[in-house]
Amino acid sequence: MCLEADRNLRTKAYFVDVQVCFVFLKRTSSRKELPVASHFGDRLCVAVEKKRTPLVVGLDPVYDRLPAEIREHPEMNDSEDAGAAIDAVATFCNRVLHLVAGKVPAVKINSAYFEKYLWEGVEAYYALVSEAESLGVEVIGDVKRGDIGHTAGLYSQAHLQNPIMTGLEDIITPDAITVNGFAGADGIVPFADTANAEGKGVFVWVRASNPSAGVIQDFADADGVKMYEKLAEVVGEIAKQSERTGERGYSNVGMVVGGTSPEATTALREKYPEMWILVPGYGSQGATAADCVRFCNKDKMGALVNSSRSIIYAYDKPEYQEKFGGDWEKCIVQAVDDANAELREAIGL
Amino acid sequence: MCLEADRNLRTKAYFVDVQVCFVFLKRTSSRKELPVASHFGDRLCVAVEKKRTPLVVGLDPVYDRLPAEIREHPEMNDSEDAGAAIDAVATFCNRVLHLVAGKVPAVKINSAYFEKYLWEGVEAYYALVSEAESLGVEVIGDVKRGDIGHTAGLYSQAHLQNPIMTGLEDIITPDAITVNGFAGADGIVPFADTANAEGKGVFVWVRASNPSAGVIQDFADADGVKMYEKLAEVVGEIAKQSERTGERGYSNVGMVVGGTSPEATTALREKYPEMWILVPGYGSQGATAADCVRFCNKDKMGALVNSSRSIIYAYDKPEYQEKFGGDWEKCIVQAVDDANAELREAIGL
Repeated sequence: MCLEADRNLRTKAYFVDVQVCFVFLKRTSSRKELPVASHFGDRLCVAVEKKRTPLVVGLDPVYDRLPAEIREHPEMNDSEDAGAAIDAVATFCNRVLHLVAGKVPAVKINSAYFEKYLWEGVEAYYALVSEAESLGVEVIGDVKRGDIGHTAGLYSQAHLQNPIMTGLEDIITPDAITVNGFAGADGIVPFADTANAEGKGVFVWVRASNPSAGVIQDFADADGVKMYEKLAEVVGEIAKQSERTGERGYSNVGMVVGGTSPEATTALREKYPEMWILVPGYGSQGATAADCVRFCNKDKMGALVNSSRSIIYAYDKPEYQEKFGGDWEKCIVQAVDDANAELREAIGL
Repeated sequence: MCLEADRNLRTKAYFVDVQVCFVFLKRTSSRKELPVASHFGDRLCVAVEKKRTPLVVGLDPVYDRLPAEIREHPEMNDSEDAGAAIDAVATFCNRVLHLVAGKVPAVKINSAYFEKYLWEGVEAYYALVSEAESLGVEVIGDVKRGDIGHTAGLYSQAHLQNPIMTGLEDIITPDAITVNGFAGADGIVPFADTANAEGKGVFVWVRASNPSAGVIQDFADADGVKMYEKLAEVVGEIAKQSERTGERGYSNVGMVVGGTSPEATTALREKYPEMWILVPGYGSQGATAADCVRFCNKDKMGALVNSSRSIIYAYDKPEYQEKFGGDWEKCIVQAVDDANAELREAIGL
């Protein structure tokens, strides 16, 4: 354990040195300083209006794609050392959070990229969630958890309930998580109920955009109803319950729907006006701003448009490299500004 | 970090005191001592034949149900202290592992029960997986992960790849995990490929046994084919690829199928003889030994029958309390022996 303690002390020193104070903030940030919990659907409306964009920046950090400044730092220049790699990934994500938190309504943190480093990565995940919360941006934990009964309840506690246990009480869990609804209502309600109790939300994965998803999700009954539409019905029944609905008419139960299928989009949007829809695939995955507009209601709300790689690795793009040289942070800021401008114009926010 | 270091030292001392040496074993066990990886499907055949039972003991530890001996121990008698609660849960699971490892082919560890304690619980989960591996029993990580593309690949690394990174190299990941196949082949193949590379396996969740699962999973097309049957087809296509098949004819890609639906069971068993089927629901959830026999092939292989609560909380049952009084360990051992006897007779192992 001495090694562990040394590593953390060393980490803390590094972060202080580069003016980020990541570990320090992690240890001192507290829920008590945050605004009182309100309805998640209402908070999203306020955030989208305030930032004038539905853009969600997704954090999918891969060590090998991190900026040279971080990868070459003497304390973090070894992708095969778990401590160094996690420090690098966490440092990068923390700096991205500070760059984008004022510009977008929400960030999405992809759990898989942290679970890769086992529990040490999971600790970094929760630290980043807590840090993002302290910056006042809504945080979506992309965890895609799904199970039934008591197990679903425990997953919902792990990922949506702010812990009260001694030793973990300074940790804040995400404002919302993604949920896999394969088991139907029994697998969704435990998450939705925890979200309700905590002033948080869930996004049930209804339609993916990968090529093979259609085999299962477009599987159709005799009337041509597709499986994802049936799942949307199940989610919609839960979402429209009055106790889950905020003052602005939005539920704290939403959907994840891939952005590359225009017909699916339009139909789901019209049928479930009360649901926020989280749309992956803007940017690198090929969905355009026009595709994303289809997810908005007439009030311009209801859509959250996620972009991950095209924002956080903007410094790999020639257009930004030409403009900002090796300043990777300026590249990211510009990529957010460009995406915001495009979405703002398309939606009229 | 001093507090953290102290807690671990204290924990270590406690475990040594009670002759379990959990933390000590965790730090000294190593992959190098384990047999060379073989095919997961073959290993299951050998294990079921050797133990003469398909029983899988599921670890779903809930603090409030732990034996009084553990809950009342001065170092672990506070469910609201994360450190004490995790120590209690890990101690209990470790002792159960030592009781059952010689009697069953596999154990299943349910990730949700550990994720509840955030990264500290995840550390305990991996420690228990490593400990179980060192006891020579097959370990199934019940994680129900599911996503697409690169994200699925990362989840498969986190949960199936034995880490080579410095700092995590003594950790062994499970022999197999449960996977959510909602996204179709794109969401299954990354897990199956990692399993193949590591001599491990996956069980894709095809049919749940909860009441609402049917709304989605029994959703039928014009020919009466149900969604879970379509998903089984997708899984079956992947499973039967020759590179995934062992010497005994079994694939390292299997299914999770609830034990309470006899027709579904029989049809799936006949159609996919090459797949191991993990059957939850024996015992507390109502599936009988006769229900479970339907999951076996003619060679008596192919079924793994999971029982969690009715084994690990056997000391709550009057029948065992009468016989063994407060000796909770004897109750668990007897419950395993009873379940094994019942399954052995039903299957003829």
